[in-house]
Amino acid sequence: MDTVDIIVKKRDGGKLDDEEIRYMIMRYTKGDIPDYQMSAFLMAVYFKGMDKGETTVLTDVMKRSGDVVDLSCINGIKVDKHSTGGVGDKTTLIAGPLAASCGVPVAKMSGRGLGFTGGTIDKLESIPGFKVSVERENFIEQVNTKGIAIIGQTGHIAPADKKIYALRDVTGTVENFSLITSSIMSKKLASGSDAILLDVKCGSGAFMKTQKDAEKLASMMVDIGNMSGKKTMAVITDMDQPLGRAVGNAMEVKEAIQVLKGQGEHDITELSVYLAGIMIYLGQKAATVEAGIKMAFHALRNGRGLKKFKDLITAQGGVLDIIDNTDLLPSAGVSLDFKAYDDGYINKIDAMRIGIASQHTGAGRFTKDDDIDFAAGIYFYKKTGAEVKRGEVICSVYGNDVKKVKKALEEIKSAVKITREKPEQRKLIKKIVR
Amino acid sequence: MDTVDIIVKKRDGGKLDDEEIRYMIMRYTKGDIPDYQMSAFLMAVYFKGMDKGETTVLTDVMKRSGDVVDLSCINGIKVDKHSTGGVGDKTTLIAGPLAASCGVPVAKMSGRGLGFTGGTIDKLESIPGFKVSVERENFIEQVNTKGIAIIGQTGHIAPADKKIYALRDVTGTVENFSLITSSIMSKKLASGSDAILLDVKCGSGAFMKTQKDAEKLASMMVDIGNMSGKKTMAVITDMDQPLGRAVGNAMEVKEAIQVLKGQGEHDITELSVYLAGIMIYLGQKAATVEAGIKMAFHALRNGRGLKKFKDLITAQGGVLDIIDNTDLLPSAGVSLDFKAYDDGYINKIDAMRIGIASQHTGAGRFTKDDDIDFAAGIYFYKKTGAEVKRGEVICSVYGNDVKKVKKALEEIKSAVKITREKPEQRKLIKKIVR
Repeated sequence: MDTVDIIVKKRDGGKLDDEEIRYMIMRYTKGDIPDYQMSAFLMAVYFKGMDKGETTVLTDVMKRSGDVVDLSCINGIKVDKHSTGGVGDKTTLIAGPLAASCGVPVAKMSGRGLGFTGGTIDKLESIPGFKVSVERENFIEQVNTKGIAIIGQTGHIAPADKKIYALRDVTGTVENFSLITSSIMSKKLASGSDAILLDVKCGSGAFMKTQKDAEKLASMMVDIGNMSGKKTMAVITDMDQPLGRAVGNAMEVKEAIQVLKGQGEHDITELSVYLAGIMIYLGQKAATVEAGIKMAFHALRNGRGLKKFKDLITAQGGVLDIIDNTDLLPSAGVSLDFKAYDDGYINKIDAMRIGIASQHTGAGRFTKDDDIDFAAGIYFYKKTGAEVKRGEVICSVYGNDVKKVKKALEEIKSAVKITREKPEQRKLIKKIVR
Repeated sequence: MDTVDIIVKKRDGGKLDDEEIRYMIMRYTKGDIPDYQMSAFLMAVYFKGMDKGETTVLTDVMKRSGDVVDLSCINGIKVDKHSTGGVGDKTTLIAGPLAASCGVPVAKMSGRGLGFTGGTIDKLESIPGFKVSVERENFIEQVNTKGIAIIGQTGHIAPADKKIYALRDVTGTVENFSLITSSIMSKKLASGSDAILLDVKCGSGAFMKTQKDAEKLASMMVDIGNMSGKKTMAVITDMDQPLGRAVGNAMEVKEAIQVLKGQGEHDITELSVYLAGIMIYLGQKAATVEAGIKMAFHALRNGRGLKKFKDLITAQGGVLDIIDNTDLLPSAGVSLDFKAYDDGYINKIDAMRIGIASQHTGAGRFTKDDDIDFAAGIYFYKKTGAEVKRGEVICSVYGNDVKKVKKALEEIKSAVKITREKPEQRKLIKKIVR
């Protein structure tokens, strides 16, 4: 088999057979195929795509490139929830405890990665004392006894994806359905859960700008998950403005606590309950999605979700007092306000730009070795659709470096648009794909 | 400026500005942009192309990446002739002396490279004693006194092309008009000649399979040459079967001598005289192309072309006796015949496969460090259109390694097709582009 022949076959629109895909991925992962041939191949895939059969094989090869986690010692149907990435998305911190409180074992291993804010793991690490490195046996025991554990990804999950993703990131080959699908699903299928819930974001702050594209990606991932023997569902949700009010690690933990206390913003509360409901359904603790959502809502109202979040913090060594005194979370030394430049309605808060602003504050990483400033971020007092008066504060920007905070503020200026007309409200939860 | 942004801009069909092209090429040549980003960029260019403006800038940047040769000390209008690559193409060895004998200074610097046979330089080196490394002053003096010199490329001509071509070769990004144009023209424009004649091959043995594609490539190169201030013309010629009878270095020198003696095959004689005629016109030694061709034909008939070839050999230290005794050229230790498998007419001799067979004999290089076997190659007794009887020898394969010669013979079997019907004759010289 010849690497150039395979590149040319894909370049010319050919369908690759299983052996050709295996050859490219495994030899690249081992270092036998150089980066420059893989990047040309990825660009050819970008243009010519892969069909469902090719994408299924690609996902399977990438999954098998490393460890496949065995969680069979955990009782019950383990449900994994994954978001394709949004700004202010702290749903895992809410939906996880809600689902767990309804009897669904939540055994979550989460990555860090780059992004607008840290990942779920970084957010949890902003809780003083909270440990994300847990031994495998303790992890399993914690899920069996407490019903929930969220830890950093250990071991060697889908190293092929890790290597290929790093290359895609610097060669303009990220935005392709098959490549995105295989990247997400190879890791999910290797992670040991029995069922998978995907939150596919669409809008200005997401990879998928349109609902049509988001549905196409969701269908591909759901099909591949189901074909691989894991019950998989997806929800298409709006990511046009940040989710909730807080963007930034400690601030998002604080907001998650508010939601679990029943005092959260409508959007983040609604979505978290919805996701938890589907997790409960997938975990076979409810007969229908609707029944699951009812159970999740009930768990929010009666405080069992909050109780489960407390169990999680205690089990992993975090300071429990943060629940009642969120001032114990890291706080920022610098803050600047962003004020309305005119009277009117907030027409748009561009999620992508807010994400970049968040990164500038120090809440996210630009390179994988960057340290995260847990206290940094942005807090919105007003969201899209709100009426504002000129000079009224729309959001505050927090950090510990004045220059960074100012840079973030500049970015926010280009993200927020005020108009005389009240904008139409966008639907948050657009569709369920199963 | 950001490399990924430029890759994505081209990927999405954007037109690159001069600075972006310069940034990509110069930083890559210096090693500041890694191979994997350049190969993704090249694949994006493969799919989205470059317009004439972009291709002109690309060519110019690549030309300026190294030395631009100054041949102004040579009197007269220097004409360079370049072929896009064919099988059995020894026209430079014939057209060069013919044009020189008509007063056009031929100051040719030629590369080696990979290929089905060696380059012009390798062919000349098969002449015992012939030196292809000549000092710059001696090179210029030789052209001024003898009218012709053909030497190996010295110095640092278009290093950007060298590096990019090596990458294209292993990433499936060779076959693109803009990339081919810039690769050829950057070197031609740096080579110090005043006018350029391009022999653009089309057919099964060429990059360009159709006349339409060959014309498109020719127009692009002619335009860029003329815009750069060098009078440029192109001829579209057939490369569906090998040119002449011989494929292989010493064998091609022998055939060139036969042609210059007026005893050559019709096809190679016709094309060589035609190319020489255009060179004479471009060198302003004839008022029209037709008049140039007449002069070239005359120089062939009266032996002045052969005389000039002898001057070339003598000036560069070669053994002159090979002219009258071609047995003094390297000869092969092994030969095998390929015989007609049926009665009928030769319908096709696939030039590409003959080229590969020639490489197998040892006449060409597979990697740049391979040594060439000057004696190896293939000699055709019968060409396309000829009537053959079953068992009649169509060609002989020569070499010094039985295994290699047998491998070449296998390849030839798949290249030659015999039919009952006599095939239509293909036109050798299809079009002139100016």
